[in-house]
Amino acid sequence: MLKITFLPDKKNIKADKGTTILEAMERAGISIDTPCGGKGICGKCKILVTKGINPITSIEEKFLSEEEIRKGFRLACQAKLFKDSIIEIPSEIRLDFKRVFSSNSKGDIHRTKNNFSLESNLKKVFLDLQKPSLDDQRSDWERIKDGLSSKKIKNISNLKISVEILKKIPILIRRANFRITVTICNDEIIDIEIGNTAKKSYGIAFDIGTTTVVGYLIDLGSGEELFAVAKTNPQIIHGDDVISRIGFAQQHKGDLEKLQKEIVITLNEIIRETTQKAEIDKSNIYETVIVGNTCMHHLFLGLNSINLAPSPYIPVIKESLSLKVKDIPGLSLNPTANIYMLPNISAFVGADILAGILSTSMWREDKTVLFVDLGTNGEVVLGLKKKLWACSAAAGPAFEGSRISSGMRAAEGAIDKVKIDNKFITYKVIEDGKIRGICGSGLIDLIAELLKLGLINKSGKLIDREECNFELSEEIRKRIIKGQKGNRFLLVKGKETENGKPIYLTQRDIREVQLAKAAIFAGIKILLKELNIPLEDIQEILLAGAFGNFIDKKSAVRIGLIPNLPLKKIESVGNAAGRGAEITLCSNKMRELSQEISKKVKYVELSSRPDFQEEFIKAMIF
Amino acid sequence: MLKITFLPDKKNIKADKGTTILEAMERAGISIDTPCGGKGICGKCKILVTKGINPITSIEEKFLSEEEIRKGFRLACQAKLFKDSIIEIPSEIRLDFKRVFSSNSKGDIHRTKNNFSLESNLKKVFLDLQKPSLDDQRSDWERIKDGLSSKKIKNISNLKISVEILKKIPILIRRANFRITVTICNDEIIDIEIGNTAKKSYGIAFDIGTTTVVGYLIDLGSGEELFAVAKTNPQIIHGDDVISRIGFAQQHKGDLEKLQKEIVITLNEIIRETTQKAEIDKSNIYETVIVGNTCMHHLFLGLNSINLAPSPYIPVIKESLSLKVKDIPGLSLNPTANIYMLPNISAFVGADILAGILSTSMWREDKTVLFVDLGTNGEVVLGLKKKLWACSAAAGPAFEGSRISSGMRAAEGAIDKVKIDNKFITYKVIEDGKIRGICGSGLIDLIAELLKLGLINKSGKLIDREECNFELSEEIRKRIIKGQKGNRFLLVKGKETENGKPIYLTQRDIREVQLAKAAIFAGIKILLKELNIPLEDIQEILLAGAFGNFIDKKSAVRIGLIPNLPLKKIESVGNAAGRGAEITLCSNKMRELSQEISKKVKYVELSSRPDFQEEFIKAMIF
Repeated sequence: MLKITFLPDKKNIKADKGTTILEAMERAGISIDTPCGGKGICGKCKILVTKGINPITSIEEKFLSEEEIRKGFRLACQAKLFKDSIIEIPSEIRLDFKRVFSSNSKGDIHRTKNNFSLESNLKKVFLDLQKPSLDDQRSDWERIKDGLSSKKIKNISNLKISVEILKKIPILIRRANFRITVTICNDEIIDIEIGNTAKKSYGIAFDIGTTTVVGYLIDLGSGEELFAVAKTNPQIIHGDDVISRIGFAQQHKGDLEKLQKEIVITLNEIIRETTQKAEIDKSNIYETVIVGNTCMHHLFLGLNSINLAPSPYIPVIKESLSLKVKDIPGLSLNPTANIYMLPNISAFVGADILAGILSTSMWREDKTVLFVDLGTNGEVVLGLKKKLWACSAAAGPAFEGSRISSGMRAAEGAIDKVKIDNKFITYKVIEDGKIRGICGSGLIDLIAELLKLGLINKSGKLIDREECNFELSEEIRKRIIKGQKGNRFLLVKGKETENGKPIYLTQRDIREVQLAKAAIFAGIKILLKELNIPLEDIQEILLAGAFGNFIDKKSAVRIGLIPNLPLKKIESVGNAAGRGAEITLCSNKMRELSQEISKKVKYVELSSRPDFQEEFIKAMIF
Repeated sequence: MLKITFLPDKKNIKADKGTTILEAMERAGISIDTPCGGKGICGKCKILVTKGINPITSIEEKFLSEEEIRKGFRLACQAKLFKDSIIEIPSEIRLDFKRVFSSNSKGDIHRTKNNFSLESNLKKVFLDLQKPSLDDQRSDWERIKDGLSSKKIKNISNLKISVEILKKIPILIRRANFRITVTICNDEIIDIEIGNTAKKSYGIAFDIGTTTVVGYLIDLGSGEELFAVAKTNPQIIHGDDVISRIGFAQQHKGDLEKLQKEIVITLNEIIRETTQKAEIDKSNIYETVIVGNTCMHHLFLGLNSINLAPSPYIPVIKESLSLKVKDIPGLSLNPTANIYMLPNISAFVGADILAGILSTSMWREDKTVLFVDLGTNGEVVLGLKKKLWACSAAAGPAFEGSRISSGMRAAEGAIDKVKIDNKFITYKVIEDGKIRGICGSGLIDLIAELLKLGLINKSGKLIDREECNFELSEEIRKRIIKGQKGNRFLLVKGKETENGKPIYLTQRDIREVQLAKAAIFAGIKILLKELNIPLEDIQEILLAGAFGNFIDKKSAVRIGLIPNLPLKKIESVGNAAGRGAEITLCSNKMRELSQEISKKVKYVELSSRPDFQEEFIKAMIF
């Protein structure tokens, strides 16, 4: 066994010879950004081997400069360990979810706060029971049922009880001196406790995203959100989009269970953190609601997602599903507590979108509303007169910083806002840290500004320095640099960045953004066609998701990502999915409603539309 | 570790120093008769240590003769292992269930065969589904539901499905080329199989007795019993009555789980044997019905039975219970298959008695019928005009050979019938083997015959040789032998028995039988009092259980175990409990009926009746 030390964490682990550095990091619990899932095609997982270096592989040679190789940089997914090693992990590739989380808790997430009333099927009843005697030989269970009956609980004769609860009863009720609290949900006893705990009743809602998992601990008595915690989805090590996850799950026997386990461990961490902060006992969590995209939904349940990805894109189940905590191996909640999975709409429009539709109330509006969730998949929903149409456009990961030369996630050190006038460039850096790259919202701003100045033309070409508008200052002009693969624009000089490298926008970066925005805009156009209404009829646009919250609306309109509407008609709705999960956690009526909505949404499969390609090409133009 | 060899099995195991021989035997899978459960109070577990002998303990000295000690006999529950040893297990203490089983399959167990119709909620439906396409993106689950709907299956929208089944679906239905068979029970999908298997539908009923466990494999399509298999309940090593089992379960943490595991292993063996014989796949077993006394019911479920035994005798649950195979750890059946537990009547009148009431149809008769199940607990049910009263009388294990000087179970070598006239003694030996002892039915015969000849008087005293009737031959007379603790009667001389020891009936043996029969008869009297009807009103007696099948009715009446009725009015009903389990396995109506009956039975607690003691003393008289 080799001894491997990771810096700056100073974590030591033992590893077999031949283990990749990425596998070793995974075992050490160190998460880094691996957009391609460790396939050696993105070159993002650069780490520094300071002791125990090995010869370079041909794949690594493609992604590493000569200087990097000389210094000891390697790709974590390719380099294998053959000696005791010390490995340093650069901060820029580490996963940092602070910003992602703050985005989730920002925005108008309380938009629907007063639109529903607390209406849980959950009931906690305190009972002070008679003790058994030779004249009263009722069984423990009979005694409890009679007690509930005296408290006017209905439908006692159909009340169900599981073996788990029965096992607890005989010792517990005697220790409680026959004073107990019984928790009932949907005609089933799901908990029995010593003494009067009738007021302790909590639920937890999870939004399982491909990148981030957020949990919201709710007091089911008041509907109040006690604490919310976000964590990076640890599956990210197997790739940053759902396609990589689906692929990973098929590689080896047990990989599907591994993905499920990873997500369960994360939920357990969130449960531990939120309950500790709120100082409550997790055994008093009786209800859980899960939303997520269809792939995350399947992986959480341990369902094989193999048929989601190839055409014709078939989920195992789209309908809502009620289950028990004990059905999910390892989930550390009361095993008899309920889990409610919101319904999915299709293989690529998941329960998270449905939750968003629900929480934004767009399902009941008469006007024409467009809901756009921007991400690797851009999900688009069009609502008109209480009817709904949805599609999913494969935008690719450009907005999340992937496949962009200096791209990065919206984390510390990312440029997230850019303004350029004739003379000056100004930008904002997340948490005012050392500049490490540019994130999606910065990228959209930058392209929008360059379009405004005419440096990028309608076809997306970054023009030559000489072609520039004569009013433009030399300062800006000279930032356009000629290259073999087209021009590039210097945004930040090397002396101002953390790693000393300048930050450019390359011609290829612009093409990536064009592909992404064209996919989404073409999706919007197809939905409009389906309804036979013109673009101008859209009365309101809702931008959902973490990214939708930070994007500059004006820039988004300018690059043609979303239709051109007055800015006050474009609203960021924050984490609409998480809010939808909270609502359904607290209200049964809203659960029923979510099922109704899911049946009403007409899903439009873009890949089966011959006119999609045409719209896509049109939408490439700026 | 020590090396321990058991003869004649030639089984070798490794054991830690200090392990008792009984524990080592348990691990070697060798079951012997240990009536006291290894507490060192019955002295029945005599084994021969031929190598590795240790000094004797004071408890063993009490039970072993000097010659036995010299030869190497020890008590398995007391002697500990400290050297490599060879241990010989005498055949007379080995558990032999052949006879027990044959008794179960004998008798009029088909009494109710035509009284019910097959009415299972189980349905198997073959579906030939359309394959998915871009024009038909229904989820797998939707596709299956639509298929069922086209087959006119009702209530599709409420159809439930578990995560286990969902996990199977995506791979299975594609491997099946979308030709599948779906099994539905109570609005839930409990199985999905490749191809058309609609005719393969089986159930298994279990009667879990304190001593014997019987399983009946049934074709749910025809109601036919395919195979029945009986096994000794392996819990017997912890004592032969329910009180010892309850006690054992309280000794250490994990003992309750151990008892559950033991019974589950036995059920698994029965499942394996019956399905192999019937050449069916156990995955096609979808329904299981369990009957047993209340303690066995609790131990099978893993419920703490601690409150069953001390007054006021409270079960955890008496009601019927539906659960899944997956709720019972280790049970090797389809995890989504159903288990139905018949209701119990009280802590000491279990579901087995209810199943007996059901299968004998006494619940619907107008006449006065007495149902008696003879065993360690004598359960008595009195039926009159479709009303039912029940009680349980602690008879003790005398009828099963325990606490009787030469007593043994009804196994090979047991004297099970005795006739004595003035001159000759005749007896029958089970399987004509070497004589090893006397079992319950033989004991009742023997006492009945001695009563007839006047050798036992009304008070139960075995009179002196000199007091005998002058007509009695010297041959019989001289068999009465005087002793310090009363007289004894020589039944078989030492030269005719396997171990060379004579078989006696001692004064103490008679007292044990008196206590047993008095308990049962007093129970009968109390029930009659409860109804305020005289003994003479009883119109029919049903004798249930293995023992009830073999007992000589005339002798039973003569010793006063049951009321004096014309013999043709006394009927042996064989294994009425097993038959009741079979019936409820095949018919939902009968399940509902069993619940109704359980509510109608009025349980009479003998220990709370001040007149019970009085009746008990009266019933001691022969």
